[in-house]
Amino acid sequence: MFKYSHKVQFYETDMMGIVHHSNYLRFYEEARVAFAHSLGWIDYQKPESASQFAVLETRVKHRRPLFFGDEVEILIQGRVEGVRVIFQYKMRARGEDISVAETSHAALDKDLKVKRLPADFAEKLGNGQWTETWL
Amino acid sequence: MFKYSHKVQFYETDMMGIVHHSNYLRFYEEARVAFAHSLGWIDYQKPESASQFAVLETRVKHRRPLFFGDEVEILIQGRVEGVRVIFQYKMRARGEDISVAETSHAALDKDLKVKRLPADFAEKLGNGQWTETWL
Amino acid sequence: MFKYSHKVQFYETDMMGIVHHSNYLRFYEEARVAFAHSLGWIDYQKPESASQFAVLETRVKHRRPLFFGDEVEILIQGRVEGVRVIFQYKMRARGEDISVAETSHAALDKDLKVKRLPADFAEKLGNGQWTETWL
Amino acid sequence: MFKYSHKVQFYETDMMGIVHHSNYLRFYEEARVAFAHSLGWIDYQKPESASQFAVLETRVKHRRPLFFGDEVEILIQGRVEGVRVIFQYKMRARGEDISVAETSHAALDKDLKVKRLPADFAEKLGNGQWTETWL
Repeated sequence: MFKYSHKVQFYETDMMGIVHHSNYLRFYEEARVAFAHSLGWIDYQKPESASQFAVLETRVKHRRPLFFGDEVEILIQGRVEGVRVIFQYKMRARGEDISVAETSHAALDKDLKVKRLPADFAEKLGNGQWTETWL
Repeated sequence: MFKYSHKVQFYETDMMGIVHHSNYLRFYEEARVAFAHSLGWIDYQKPESASQFAVLETRVKHRRPLFFGDEVEILIQGRVEGVRVIFQYKMRARGEDISVAETSHAALDKDLKVKRLPADFAEKLGNGQWTETWL
Repeated sequence: MFKYSHKVQFYETDMMGIVHHSNYLRFYEEARVAFAHSLGWIDYQKPESASQFAVLETRVKHRRPLFFGDEVEILIQGRVEGVRVIFQYKMRARGEDISVAETSHAALDKDLKVKRLPADFAEKLGNGQWTETWL
Repeated sequence: MFKYSHKVQFYETDMMGIVHHSNYLRFYEEARVAFAHSLGWIDYQKPESASQFAVLETRVKHRRPLFFGDEVEILIQGRVEGVRVIFQYKMRARGEDISVAETSHAALDKDLKVKRLPADFAEKLGNGQWTETWL
């Protein structure tokens, strides 16, 4: 299973002394991009390869806060549902469960219309490995 | 019904030429804070008044993108469910439906334990006006 | 003289309880964009009109911190120096001087090469009104 | 000499397709915090250790843009001048010089008054190694 790490930066905190909740979507995006890159779907030399998917929906559940300096670990799993790609995420830090999340996406063509996914997309994504739902 | 406006800034866009999805949670927070301020719950002279609520869950559905310079309008409604406060939001711009969202929160005491809401909280929040769900 | 207002948001603070210093460049950009729009140089219907200038240099001096809820007021003045456009900014809040700044920019053509400014650019910018330096 | 790395994320870009200039101050802060941590000045278990220094001034010069996926390398050097601590930075990516910067800071006591630096501060910072100015 793909695992991603992020170290919490000072500028990611807010006046409550914890990471602002909007930044979780950024950490989850970091994990998703790294995962897509590991599958050969994002080529850093061709930035447009990262712009082909629109975000349709995001959902984040918070259990414990994140603090400055925390080493965050994110697990990610993906699945295809029709024209949608669904990702789920588990975030841990300090030996604790911090947050779980789900985001869904669709591939867009040049006119921003939803288009079909390539035939082998689901297989590459590891549909078979998604054996439990995380939220 | 409480209405909030936000003008989309250049730094809120990403390389897709649209507002990055993480910023929607920031716009929704702006609306929520302004709403809480209008109810007398946030005193800008006492910043700790804004730090008493933790974010438990966020959910955002995207219909259309936002662009640089867009005038965004957000409608907000609130409801109490046990120790939770739930807000729902409708976002419009350019005469179109852009996004809907829901966030849930709990009041925390000094030791970060969930505490009961004040007796008149639900009434002030306008529980009775929440007659339909937005997502 | 052009004046711009910004209300400090919760997500703009950091764990020191004040606005993170990187956000000052965002507030100054907001002022610069609004100023350019007032001069007819930015057309929100043509976002590319806002992308024609590169940032060459930024400089910010901090005198007092900004807090959540502060009503920030920014004064801005502009001047042309060869192919460069220079802006200076004064930021005030709570009746106090908060910060001063200077940014310099150049117009770019499609190949990201620096290009000459239009003939009437300096005049429109109000070169004559820049009578004192602010930092 | 202390060296820090940062990988450019999707959410750090703007609609020009490059990293927004305000994010450079965040990358430079990342480098400064990592440097301070390497010197034993920041203890991630005591977040207040990172909050003792105020930012007095920042200055950034841009030579080339940063793109999504770039591997950024930052060199940092520090020096004491009276009650001020000065850092200078060199940023490189793709084998090119991207940006140079300088930030200055002062230690604050609990009442936000500037206080003297510890006697061995300058020595630890490696004053002697600052042999050339970078901007």
